[in-house]
Amino acid sequence: MISREVQLKQRPEGMPTVDDFNVVEVSVPEPAENEVTVRNVCMSVDPYMRGRMVDRKSYTPPFQLGETLTGGAIGQVVASRNKGLAEGDYVQSNFGWRETFTAPADQLSSLGTLAAPPSAYLGVLGMPGMTAYVGLLEVGALKDEETVFVSGAAGAVGSIVGQIAKLKKCRVLGSAGSAEKIAWLRDDLNFDYVFDYHDGDLLAHLREGAPQGLDVYFDNVGGDHLEAAIFHMRPFGRIPLCGAISQYNATEPVPGPVNLTMAIGLGLTLQGFIVSHFNHLAAQFRSDMEGWVNSGQIKYRETVYQGVDHAADAFIGLFTGDNTGKMVVNLSEDA
Amino acid sequence: MISREVQLKQRPEGMPTVDDFNVVEVSVPEPAENEVTVRNVCMSVDPYMRGRMVDRKSYTPPFQLGETLTGGAIGQVVASRNKGLAEGDYVQSNFGWRETFTAPADQLSSLGTLAAPPSAYLGVLGMPGMTAYVGLLEVGALKDEETVFVSGAAGAVGSIVGQIAKLKKCRVLGSAGSAEKIAWLRDDLNFDYVFDYHDGDLLAHLREGAPQGLDVYFDNVGGDHLEAAIFHMRPFGRIPLCGAISQYNATEPVPGPVNLTMAIGLGLTLQGFIVSHFNHLAAQFRSDMEGWVNSGQIKYRETVYQGVDHAADAFIGLFTGDNTGKMVVNLSEDA
Repeated sequence: MISREVQLKQRPEGMPTVDDFNVVEVSVPEPAENEVTVRNVCMSVDPYMRGRMVDRKSYTPPFQLGETLTGGAIGQVVASRNKGLAEGDYVQSNFGWRETFTAPADQLSSLGTLAAPPSAYLGVLGMPGMTAYVGLLEVGALKDEETVFVSGAAGAVGSIVGQIAKLKKCRVLGSAGSAEKIAWLRDDLNFDYVFDYHDGDLLAHLREGAPQGLDVYFDNVGGDHLEAAIFHMRPFGRIPLCGAISQYNATEPVPGPVNLTMAIGLGLTLQGFIVSHFNHLAAQFRSDMEGWVNSGQIKYRETVYQGVDHAADAFIGLFTGDNTGKMVVNLSEDA
Repeated sequence: MISREVQLKQRPEGMPTVDDFNVVEVSVPEPAENEVTVRNVCMSVDPYMRGRMVDRKSYTPPFQLGETLTGGAIGQVVASRNKGLAEGDYVQSNFGWRETFTAPADQLSSLGTLAAPPSAYLGVLGMPGMTAYVGLLEVGALKDEETVFVSGAAGAVGSIVGQIAKLKKCRVLGSAGSAEKIAWLRDDLNFDYVFDYHDGDLLAHLREGAPQGLDVYFDNVGGDHLEAAIFHMRPFGRIPLCGAISQYNATEPVPGPVNLTMAIGLGLTLQGFIVSHFNHLAAQFRSDMEGWVNSGQIKYRETVYQGVDHAADAFIGLFTGDNTGKMVVNLSEDA
């Protein structure tokens, strides 16, 4: 069996381009004892992957040139030599960026009975959804009826952050980068105040949308958003640091906020996190979120690219604001 | 009765100078019902006061020109019309920067029986000591045997931070600005690794002193110290933000650390605080710290200026590295 797979040809300088990637054909071995062969249905592209394309020490080792990239994927077992997994079972893995693979069963998680389409388990019911959930409720220690601002609000994480905050009776502000995204957040997701960050002064928007200040700022973008939010935090405010998409393609070091010392007098907490720090909450997350999705209390959108040949385009689109909701690459043949 | 008092003549630009201050003579009224008259024994100068000399909104309102400055002071009651306070009682107040004052008794705290000389209640047993205590143990959530770095280590707060950490069996690194301070920290206070921040690369020092990285960085200075520490934090490290003395006299905004996004992958917490956020721990602090001071487990030093005429010099000295330990102005006549 042949799998088409995406490899890193060269390390991107600044904004990645399609020339940084290669699509190659790889022969997939038959499964050995306790292995299974999986046909991916869809794969994820995520901003954090940009960091792994740089050759430096980080919380995960860098991607290597000439090796197939990895990332979240949902697939179906097509051949099994493991008792726990049968043909047709849906599995979640980190073997994305490829059509088909053979791997030890203990490197996969069975998804059991799906409560939503498979691709939802890359987004609202997967890593981005859980990032929103733990970041807002655990790191951000959100309380009912507080005021929350989320940047990158139309993204896979941000759109869930805002909706969880609405469930908790909070006032919710969001920033995004297009009129279409703004309309979705305001009209479909019921954000209380939404603005286009291209449009006017960030701090002026925060003052208009939250005259009393912010209790929680959920930071997906870093840079000027973080600085503006610090200027507008209430005493004892919390700032979960989730991402800094404005900085991922920077080729020079980006200075931090000029007003970080305001954290002292205000008693602010800035706390970085990644979702794997909270794996102990995975079952609770899935139960809560499947409930909210099925009851319609949490909605989600996907931006879908078709086929492994367009995976690099999908990835690059994350940094040009191409996606509303979760960016997904569909790998099933019947699309 | 006449009190000599210090007022702000003009708002300092950059580093304060003696020309920014006036010493004036004020007539002290007799106490009315429930008031007392207090002769100050000593007063405190503290870095936070620099912030209050700027005309901007902050956690405390700015000092006004032509009014007597305020700040921590220890005095003795010399006349009382309040049942709770008798002549000779030691009281702690915020009526510093003056020799004598009359005030309502409910604006003073009786110190009760002193376990140390009065000036210690401006330092190790006062606000700086409690800042160290709550910042390290509550905000920093210090655990036994961790590795701690404190900047401004020879200061009123830093020198107590390091010693509490040693009591908790931690490895302790400190930075300071002179050979004499380094020697004191290393030889008398038993810090494990001390360096002069003028001397070589900060990060290289941290790597040498803490090959395994830092669990807690107690930040008194901000700027390049904070940036170097972030580069060297261990996963889930904590950074209590206590002060930024390197920035207090800046006339332009100072950019934050370029590496703040490292907090995401490492799960770092940066938490600002001021001691008054933790007033509920005052009794526990006093009991613990009096015990440590009396047993010799915590040592302290003071740098003492004599007389209200030199209060401004003492204050300015905070920013030129003039003090080892707590900077105190002695106001008693028998010095």
